[in-house]
Amino acid sequence: MNKPKAVILLSGGLDSVTALSLAKENYQCYALSFSYGQRHDAELNAAKNIAEYFEVAEHRILNIDLGQLGGSALTDQAIDVPETPTEGIPVTYVPARNTIFLSYALAWAEVLNAHDIFIGVNAVDYSGYPDCRPEYIDAFSKMANLATKTAVEGNPINIHTPLIKLTKAEIIKLGIEHGVDYAMTVSCYAANDQGKACGRCDSCQLRKKGFEEAGDQDPTRYA
Amino acid sequence: MNKPKAVILLSGGLDSVTALSLAKENYQCYALSFSYGQRHDAELNAAKNIAEYFEVAEHRILNIDLGQLGGSALTDQAIDVPETPTEGIPVTYVPARNTIFLSYALAWAEVLNAHDIFIGVNAVDYSGYPDCRPEYIDAFSKMANLATKTAVEGNPINIHTPLIKLTKAEIIKLGIEHGVDYAMTVSCYAANDQGKACGRCDSCQLRKKGFEEAGDQDPTRYA
Repeated sequence: MNKPKAVILLSGGLDSVTALSLAKENYQCYALSFSYGQRHDAELNAAKNIAEYFEVAEHRILNIDLGQLGGSALTDQAIDVPETPTEGIPVTYVPARNTIFLSYALAWAEVLNAHDIFIGVNAVDYSGYPDCRPEYIDAFSKMANLATKTAVEGNPINIHTPLIKLTKAEIIKLGIEHGVDYAMTVSCYAANDQGKACGRCDSCQLRKKGFEEAGDQDPTRYA
Repeated sequence: MNKPKAVILLSGGLDSVTALSLAKENYQCYALSFSYGQRHDAELNAAKNIAEYFEVAEHRILNIDLGQLGGSALTDQAIDVPETPTEGIPVTYVPARNTIFLSYALAWAEVLNAHDIFIGVNAVDYSGYPDCRPEYIDAFSKMANLATKTAVEGNPINIHTPLIKLTKAEIIKLGIEHGVDYAMTVSCYAANDQGKACGRCDSCQLRKKGFEEAGDQDPTRYA
């Protein structure tokens, strides 16, 4: 029997790739990435290579320019990516990003007749974004099950967040067990044209610490 | 004192324009429209004219091609718009459309530091889309208030649905009281290049019935 279909949000970073490696065990994977006005293409190039590596059923990259709305260091060239942690929710937060990404995943799931969506959010070693927390995911899930024809007609949508309660080190160990080559992933908020990481931004620091704690060699290519 | 800001989802149809006319009383209006792969430009042209007519603070049209995902007669040329009502949720339903639209409205609201969003959904004289019902809007609102920095930091987002429990006739009467010229609006799912309505699709039929029941002359330009 064919495996059921699932939509996987794939940024090309460490977490989303690990989520894909887990989904792959039980689902036909439909990977969804976004060109959303990121500062660099390195992450999307990583997503493409990874989708191919994991032989997904299909990989779509939707072009949605969140930079048109502004408000984040990740999409607005006028705001600098900070190198030292800040109090509260940082300027790298992109307004409503996961809500927009999950909404598209929901739409594609409905078109595909898939009832499962994977997102690699994490609320332990993370940047403090509100849309990575379990209570947010639960609320999105409730909304999704009232929003779509598929759900209303009796086939509920499940939002899977297999990494949400893991430390970065635990995520790395799990991914390695499931065949992830982390050299292919890009986490840096300010990677250069060759996809090399800055080693200093919040995301690089969380990633570095993760490899240290996992006791695995950090394969990241630093600039 | 300045009026507070609100984001208004403006399709260019009868309902969204009425919602804008109501919001205008108490808010500085930021109108948001989408080029989402609709079959025709008539609705977007109507949105532009109406935004100008109501002198909104700003009107943005985001280019988001939902047609890339398919699955609806409104965005997929391979699916015909039906002329007779069908059982259940019709093929003109666009998967997760209001969820995607509201997610962008949420993002823009956060960037603008606005705490109010207006959407002209209606659950009385409507096509039966699940994402027009009060329980869906309530669930979106709960999710939104867990999703964003603004909300988490103590400024909740309010989703206003002033038309949700009104009949089409009541909406029309209310809009006329608030200065709407319905000749400027386009509701038809299959309008022609000149913005003239087919008069036969589900949306045209609901609109016609609304003007009849309101006892007002139907200003719609039919092909």
